[in-house]
Amino acid sequence: MEVLFTFDIKEQQKEHLLTKFPGVSFHYEKSPEVQEAEKANVIVTYGGDIDAALLERATSLEWLMIASAGVEKMPLAEIAEKKLIMSNVRGIHKTPMAESVLAHILALKRSLPVMYQRQQSKEWNRKVGSTELKGSTALILGPGAIGSEIGRLLQVFGVRTIGCNRSGKACPSMDEMITFDHLVPKLPEADYVISVLPSTPETKGLLSEEHFKAMKESAVFMNFGRGDLVDEALLIEVLKEDMIGHAVLDVFETEPLPVENEFWTLPNCTVSPHVSSLSGKYVERALVIFEENLEKWLQGDRNLRNVIDLDNGY
Amino acid sequence: MEVLFTFDIKEQQKEHLLTKFPGVSFHYEKSPEVQEAEKANVIVTYGGDIDAALLERATSLEWLMIASAGVEKMPLAEIAEKKLIMSNVRGIHKTPMAESVLAHILALKRSLPVMYQRQQSKEWNRKVGSTELKGSTALILGPGAIGSEIGRLLQVFGVRTIGCNRSGKACPSMDEMITFDHLVPKLPEADYVISVLPSTPETKGLLSEEHFKAMKESAVFMNFGRGDLVDEALLIEVLKEDMIGHAVLDVFETEPLPVENEFWTLPNCTVSPHVSSLSGKYVERALVIFEENLEKWLQGDRNLRNVIDLDNGY
Repeated sequence: MEVLFTFDIKEQQKEHLLTKFPGVSFHYEKSPEVQEAEKANVIVTYGGDIDAALLERATSLEWLMIASAGVEKMPLAEIAEKKLIMSNVRGIHKTPMAESVLAHILALKRSLPVMYQRQQSKEWNRKVGSTELKGSTALILGPGAIGSEIGRLLQVFGVRTIGCNRSGKACPSMDEMITFDHLVPKLPEADYVISVLPSTPETKGLLSEEHFKAMKESAVFMNFGRGDLVDEALLIEVLKEDMIGHAVLDVFETEPLPVENEFWTLPNCTVSPHVSSLSGKYVERALVIFEENLEKWLQGDRNLRNVIDLDNGY
Repeated sequence: MEVLFTFDIKEQQKEHLLTKFPGVSFHYEKSPEVQEAEKANVIVTYGGDIDAALLERATSLEWLMIASAGVEKMPLAEIAEKKLIMSNVRGIHKTPMAESVLAHILALKRSLPVMYQRQQSKEWNRKVGSTELKGSTALILGPGAIGSEIGRLLQVFGVRTIGCNRSGKACPSMDEMITFDHLVPKLPEADYVISVLPSTPETKGLLSEEHFKAMKESAVFMNFGRGDLVDEALLIEVLKEDMIGHAVLDVFETEPLPVENEFWTLPNCTVSPHVSSLSGKYVERALVIFEENLEKWLQGDRNLRNVIDLDNGY
């Protein structure tokens, strides 16, 4: 049994794996050579380094473990054709991501950017225009593990939560649920429109001009899912025309965000460099899921945790 | 019955008072003349304009309603001598203040100041050093209405809360309680040390060098109570020597904070211009408490809500 990690982990984590799985041979190579790829039964990767050529060489491969959430850039057709099992670390992002979303919402509500700026010029000015989160309404696109965690925190602050997905079926920590079809008539109620949707054929370009026109002029749009949810040229126009109040973007069509992109300089736009899911505990938590799945695998159980449905892409 | 407000309120709020209390005569004067002060049975004020001279003139005065929380700058001896009833708006600050405290904590945890700064130079850099609030420990000095609301929110994020006051008796949303005497040995456990203490003879200068020495090097000290809790010269030294990680200060010995004060320029200090309790709902909520008390007053009931004990000053 050969497991190939395409990223490095801490020495103590390596030792822990060796102790726990004495029959397994672990390799850590950022750019695996042909021979290593050929032997690997399992590849553990952040995803960006898996292409069709590598899969062609990986003749022993049975299971691809992706230590991230989105798989839209993976060669899904080849993976399906080779009948590989692909699993991810769904769920481990929920704590840092929900904390990030709340951080941005509260910072805007309590005027932190204004305060930071005035401190630079030593300006004592109590007119900061702070308002309260309590009593507002948030619409969450994609109330899965992450979206529901965001909803749980928001509810404690006295925020009403509306979840929006394909089925419209009840989700945890959502006061109300709607389907994508019913989004436009519901948007006028939302002070916050927060997306944590993955990139799938259905979510790509999901938000159009009519959605932004339906939002409150004061609405804050937050994209923490994937950059292709909305055409960036459209969103830039929306912000320039003050059609909404503010945007907080953690994801973009092209990352790193090119310096010429106007998001950088729009006064009503916060650029977060795709860091909302990061925290010192990322790899530690990914390994917990990996170990649980490896144990199953060694016992012949192929019913792994977080297996990705290759048809719908998440 | 004459009620004198020393600040202005909205027209619709004035009309509401007239309709609700037809037998009462309301006056709104920022700088009341002698005659008006003489007639007033009740004065509603933010507090800063009440001095011994005014009290001397206010010969009909029976009740002082303070539309703020701290009364340390009021002429307490004269108020006691004249046997005035003094009440405040204790409790109305809890929502905006707790939201402010959480905003600052989450902003630091999720590296928002770093992100804002890098956006100015269009720098895409995913090394922001974000960590998680979950699993940390907060020590709250003064777990009353505001402190407990902060504790309630922190607990939902998975933060352990330690309350600290005079008695050490159980308080809502505190996992543990200690007294002021036991602060030093407890401080090494805290990632956040948050004060919402009022200014009283007991709290003035409560925190000394040994307290800051006992804190973690990464600890965040947050003063949202009163500026005289700690000697500012000491706190500046503590921050310059990186004895703790960061300070977020909403209150100061002298306000507005003088431009020459070093807090403005210390990289590990956030200056908030005493705005944590502000929100568009302040006066609205203060009036709710005032109306409730005025109703009692008119019925001869002197057992008002939020009466201040002149002996302990809160």
